[in-house]
Amino acid sequence: MQPFDVHILGCGSALPTRKHLPSCQAVNVRGKLLLLDCGEGAQLSWRKTGLNWQNITHILLTHAHGDHVFGLPGLVSTMGLLGRTSPLFIHGPAQLRPFVQCILANFCKDLGYEVHFQAVDTEAHTIIFEDRSMEVWSLPLSHRLPCCGYLIREKAGLPHIRREMIDFYEIPVWAINNIKAGAGWELPDGTAVPHERLTTPPDRARAYAYCSDTMPRQDLIEWIEGVDLLYHEATYAETETALAEKYGHSTALQAATVAKQANIRRLMIGHFSSRYEDENVLLQEAQSVFPNTILAHEGLKITP
Amino acid sequence: MQPFDVHILGCGSALPTRKHLPSCQAVNVRGKLLLLDCGEGAQLSWRKTGLNWQNITHILLTHAHGDHVFGLPGLVSTMGLLGRTSPLFIHGPAQLRPFVQCILANFCKDLGYEVHFQAVDTEAHTIIFEDRSMEVWSLPLSHRLPCCGYLIREKAGLPHIRREMIDFYEIPVWAINNIKAGAGWELPDGTAVPHERLTTPPDRARAYAYCSDTMPRQDLIEWIEGVDLLYHEATYAETETALAEKYGHSTALQAATVAKQANIRRLMIGHFSSRYEDENVLLQEAQSVFPNTILAHEGLKITP
Repeated sequence: MQPFDVHILGCGSALPTRKHLPSCQAVNVRGKLLLLDCGEGAQLSWRKTGLNWQNITHILLTHAHGDHVFGLPGLVSTMGLLGRTSPLFIHGPAQLRPFVQCILANFCKDLGYEVHFQAVDTEAHTIIFEDRSMEVWSLPLSHRLPCCGYLIREKAGLPHIRREMIDFYEIPVWAINNIKAGAGWELPDGTAVPHERLTTPPDRARAYAYCSDTMPRQDLIEWIEGVDLLYHEATYAETETALAEKYGHSTALQAATVAKQANIRRLMIGHFSSRYEDENVLLQEAQSVFPNTILAHEGLKITP
Repeated sequence: MQPFDVHILGCGSALPTRKHLPSCQAVNVRGKLLLLDCGEGAQLSWRKTGLNWQNITHILLTHAHGDHVFGLPGLVSTMGLLGRTSPLFIHGPAQLRPFVQCILANFCKDLGYEVHFQAVDTEAHTIIFEDRSMEVWSLPLSHRLPCCGYLIREKAGLPHIRREMIDFYEIPVWAINNIKAGAGWELPDGTAVPHERLTTPPDRARAYAYCSDTMPRQDLIEWIEGVDLLYHEATYAETETALAEKYGHSTALQAATVAKQANIRRLMIGHFSSRYEDENVLLQEAQSVFPNTILAHEGLKITP
């Protein structure tokens, strides 16, 4: 299968700890790299992924809280120092525009590439961009200020050629692309070989949903129905439900309930409050409702 | 002696490496904490010092390059989350004012403390502020944009009381502060005991100069004459003198020459270019001119 990997660069919440960096994830979809949020230290932990800066095409920001965006100035500057020339698209709530403009005006006068900020309507579930490999959708979230998550949906690939059939029927190389695109093949005696005999079905198209920060939200369930992997914030344990509500966050139990109702394959929780020395409290709480749950941690690489 | 410690939080240059964080130092002068520059990750490495955020009174920024200031937004926000109430003074070239304003306006609406930005005249060697414990002076530097270093000069403390003399002459507690302030003591028979017999001289007043980023600068030598510790940038080795000049930096040899001419006690070099895997090249070069040189490194705590 072609790569579709999520790299966790940071999964803590607002207060820095020795264990966690603030929110940031890198997603590699068939060699194109997206960043989900960009907390302080993103450019420092990026180095450990071994991924190439030049392949970052889009940065998707969820909201205008510092622990989700304060790594952006350093990342944008450093890519300039390293000679980036291809344009960079930054998507996020309109509240982030002055911040991006301030950085560009004050620190990036000689930047060798264009930065385009595109405001996302945080109230609409809509396509943000698409290309050959993927569609990226906004996911309206409920936080203390305009906030949206993102859904990355891989597009179906082409069917796989059955090499032994190509050899058996002595099909020339020039015909392969047509067959991949859906054609069959005609033998010299006029016999038609159907497309299905020459190929196996394309790989399953996968989907990853990133939901940080939010209270549990009912309409989210429909939008993320059946995704392969859901990252849902679980800042608190159920004992702190009142705090979660006050600050616009979720408990681990609430995150797991969303996962269960949306019938997804796997749940990854993160955005842990610094109060939890042992995050297994959160894991066990989530697993009691949705067993296929894991804890995010810095350095984790996971495939939806 | 009362504490006067320099903690190195970051001593790399613009490009992030696995080894170094960008420029930041914490200076503890008798319990008051100053930050010198505030590169990305400052709040993360701060935690490792064990120092108390609440005691940061001033942040002294040298210039408007990202690798010296991109840690400021996170630090200011986090101190707010942690309940800081005492005002914070940020000093730096006027070019940094829009950046500070942008952060305050967009991310710090509920900040529980006041932030005062005070522009520093980067052309003048003058007192920035002083209190009972220290004077802080600006040090004009020569970089690609307005830039100044800082000189922290401890004020002479009070003489030390000789406990055995106090006991011998049966001097009451109420008289101690007068004696510290310079008074002598009169015995019941009218004999005068001189101040000098009751005390030992105050501790030596120490000085620390922080010079990053700069080309070697002749008038600096006079301003930092005889300081106990000088941090001078040494971005390059002598083989890269042309690059140093082009980008407004110093070589290790140049830094050591400044140290020698200024007749200082100890030199610490830093702001290393990412090209040097082994920074001993820089150390040996500096030591060939000024033997009492050390390399800065993250986690180092050093007393002037």
